[in-house]
Amino acid sequence: MNDHTASHIIRFEQNVLAKNDLMAERNRGWFEGRGILALNLMSSPGAGKTTLLECTLADLAKEVRLSVIEGDQETVRDAERIRRAGARAIQINTGSGCHLDAQMVSAALRKLAPPAHSLVIIENVGNLVCPALFDLGEAEKVVIMSVTEGEDKPLKYPHMFRAAGVMLINKIDLIPHLEFDIERCAQFAREVNPKLEIMHVSARTREGLDPWYQWLRTRIEALGVESAPA
Amino acid sequence: MNDHTASHIIRFEQNVLAKNDLMAERNRGWFEGRGILALNLMSSPGAGKTTLLECTLADLAKEVRLSVIEGDQETVRDAERIRRAGARAIQINTGSGCHLDAQMVSAALRKLAPPAHSLVIIENVGNLVCPALFDLGEAEKVVIMSVTEGEDKPLKYPHMFRAAGVMLINKIDLIPHLEFDIERCAQFAREVNPKLEIMHVSARTREGLDPWYQWLRTRIEALGVESAPA
Repeated sequence: MNDHTASHIIRFEQNVLAKNDLMAERNRGWFEGRGILALNLMSSPGAGKTTLLECTLADLAKEVRLSVIEGDQETVRDAERIRRAGARAIQINTGSGCHLDAQMVSAALRKLAPPAHSLVIIENVGNLVCPALFDLGEAEKVVIMSVTEGEDKPLKYPHMFRAAGVMLINKIDLIPHLEFDIERCAQFAREVNPKLEIMHVSARTREGLDPWYQWLRTRIEALGVESAPA
Repeated sequence: MNDHTASHIIRFEQNVLAKNDLMAERNRGWFEGRGILALNLMSSPGAGKTTLLECTLADLAKEVRLSVIEGDQETVRDAERIRRAGARAIQINTGSGCHLDAQMVSAALRKLAPPAHSLVIIENVGNLVCPALFDLGEAEKVVIMSVTEGEDKPLKYPHMFRAAGVMLINKIDLIPHLEFDIERCAQFAREVNPKLEIMHVSARTREGLDPWYQWLRTRIEALGVESAPA
């Protein structure tokens, strides 16, 4: 690859990102205009994003209206799981694509039509790398890490952990069967992002979910959802 | 995005892949010319690629000379682990990049200088999506899946499981603590790729590794390494 090609690639990448950023700001405006809290939920494949959403739906059903946008390369399995759990959900299939982008989310929002003064969670494609680069217009990025992945993932995939505001360390019920030092993992994450809020949970046993729910409530209340018409 | 831009993006993607494919064929020729078996090892972050390499190094030390190319966004932790296990290793850091490409591998091979009639394993960036699209010149792609990721990953990330020749289902020692149906997982993988060879292993307890070692021996012998000068 010569210098000309390299600079062409970098410019091209900047164009793709710049175009995405414009649409992301439009989504952000739409969410704000409608009083919606939008979160971008990311992790490796199989870290427990959908299971966390199922718990959240069940436990906060009486408090908040939650709609979900599901991203996967293929299948509609996750959207079906969410619908079975009682929420409205729409599935985006990215084919060979490795992340959601703001345009996909904009199109999905038109179909999903989430009510004003509600919560929208976008479950991204399972990937600790590419989704970190693409703003979708969310208020906050939330990253889930499973204890089975090893303590050093925040150091090896720093872009993701730098972009996130909250990190849920999931599957803590498996810690007795692993060599996993949760304090060391949290320390690595804070090296990369000193402001990261870290919570220890098991979406399977429902251990440790209260701080997550409390965080959601605080963010929702800040949007004035309390005073919203029912 | 208008049609012109979309077609420009597709053409651009084709150019990047075509350029990568040329360099991958060159790597493939170099490996063949040198009598080297090269494997491209891929998985989600934390599925156990490096631990599998540590076992393989320890258990086959007397039979085969193994060199390792390590890919990560950041840190040299994995190359250090492999060197501690007694093999030559070189680390590639991809920065914001989500996969290794053939050019990176070519440059790493020059520094690594693996001996003729040996085994080279390329441990790709932890990512079930992007690395599947980029040929590195390997003889075979090997995918590791951890039982903690859930049975449906082959359906959700079919490109990876279609590209691989071998799938190692790792961390089987954790099955008693999970709801994971290993036969269902294998069935999903075969739906996507009927020719996939599937092995059940635990790199931590070293359970089930013999079929993997036997597979390596068969592939190495087919290259005529037996008759190689010591």
